[in-house]
Amino acid sequence: MTIIITAFERSPDGGKGLARDTRVRWALEEVGQPYEVRRLSFHAMKEPAHLALHPFGQIPTYEEGDLALFETGAIVLHIAERHAGLLPDDANARARATAWMFAALNTVEPPILELATARLLEGDKPWNKERMPLVEDRVRDRLNLLSARLGDADWLDGAFSAGDLMMVSVLLRLRSSGILDEFPNLAAYVARGEARPAYRRAFAAQLAVNTGKRPS
Amino acid sequence: MTIIITAFERSPDGGKGLARDTRVRWALEEVGQPYEVRRLSFHAMKEPAHLALHPFGQIPTYEEGDLALFETGAIVLHIAERHAGLLPDDANARARATAWMFAALNTVEPPILELATARLLEGDKPWNKERMPLVEDRVRDRLNLLSARLGDADWLDGAFSAGDLMMVSVLLRLRSSGILDEFPNLAAYVARGEARPAYRRAFAAQLAVNTGKRPS
Repeated sequence: MTIIITAFERSPDGGKGLARDTRVRWALEEVGQPYEVRRLSFHAMKEPAHLALHPFGQIPTYEEGDLALFETGAIVLHIAERHAGLLPDDANARARATAWMFAALNTVEPPILELATARLLEGDKPWNKERMPLVEDRVRDRLNLLSARLGDADWLDGAFSAGDLMMVSVLLRLRSSGILDEFPNLAAYVARGEARPAYRRAFAAQLAVNTGKRPS
Repeated sequence: MTIIITAFERSPDGGKGLARDTRVRWALEEVGQPYEVRRLSFHAMKEPAHLALHPFGQIPTYEEGDLALFETGAIVLHIAERHAGLLPDDANARARATAWMFAALNTVEPPILELATARLLEGDKPWNKERMPLVEDRVRDRLNLLSARLGDADWLDGAFSAGDLMMVSVLLRLRSSGILDEFPNLAAYVARGEARPAYRRAFAAQLAVNTGKRPS
């Protein structure tokens, strides 16, 4: 069955790969599944047709036959459970890889989202300059512990998994802040993720869309 | 095999049920699995023995034989996958219930966490009074869409599932803000969750610990 995902017609990041469809593209590339992309304007994302697919009016969504899914974490987990390449075979190791997916999305990403919000939505507020160091330190608190756990390992728990895919994707949002470079092992971890052929294909595909090179 | 979870020695909320062990207790009660609780001081949570179990030094964790898990979302999903009662039988419906778990944790909870942070960590800052309405409105943006999707249904997608368990748990954090009451169907949805016998047992168990009634 054809897999169809949704993405921004034009990503707000201009093709840096930070829109969440990149995470789903990456997962699909890792497991070797072809997919089609339906691109949506900001206006279309808030219309009833898309809200029926995604209650919060966001991208990406995932359609495959009579299954329709929203939430990047759920989509990546669905792909990882149905195709080899993103989860280990051992049941306990699979549960631990899933724990790293949730850790990326519910423990590491929230302070990073707060940092993004402070820049994008409160950058012009009188308190922003004084408040920003507090927000950045809350990100550092999490990265300190993540860095300690990763140590000099290549990936978070054995072989590369959907947990690493999600953690690398979350950490990529920090690159422009400079905070990632304060943690050399995490910066190297992200670089290892970006060097994977599947990531490079996913990144190139979203870049082509956002620079208008080809309408995929 | 005995299931052992960790919880605060004394919850910062004094037993309101907002600590994340309540979510795991609730899931275990829904599927009828007994469990033991190991209580941790704030000091012990940051020591190497606990960091080996939970890289971010938080509660809850989950141990069962040779499986050790962290992250509430992963623990509840693990429980739901291995025992009947929290996920539908149909594969597509299971994937959709999982999507609601991720939606609770990665779409609805982040702005709620930001609201909690603004109160707990920035309540004494000079900008807090002026900034708070912005933070509250970001919560309302999400609740508006969630309320529209729920409509007059009892649960988010058919029968009660792990997705509802997580969404109700996340929304409970809003009660003291008054924002939940602005959305009568969401307030009623949360009340339906709290009325479930399994929730009531979970709530009573954490309350007993935090009021010192019994050391479980």
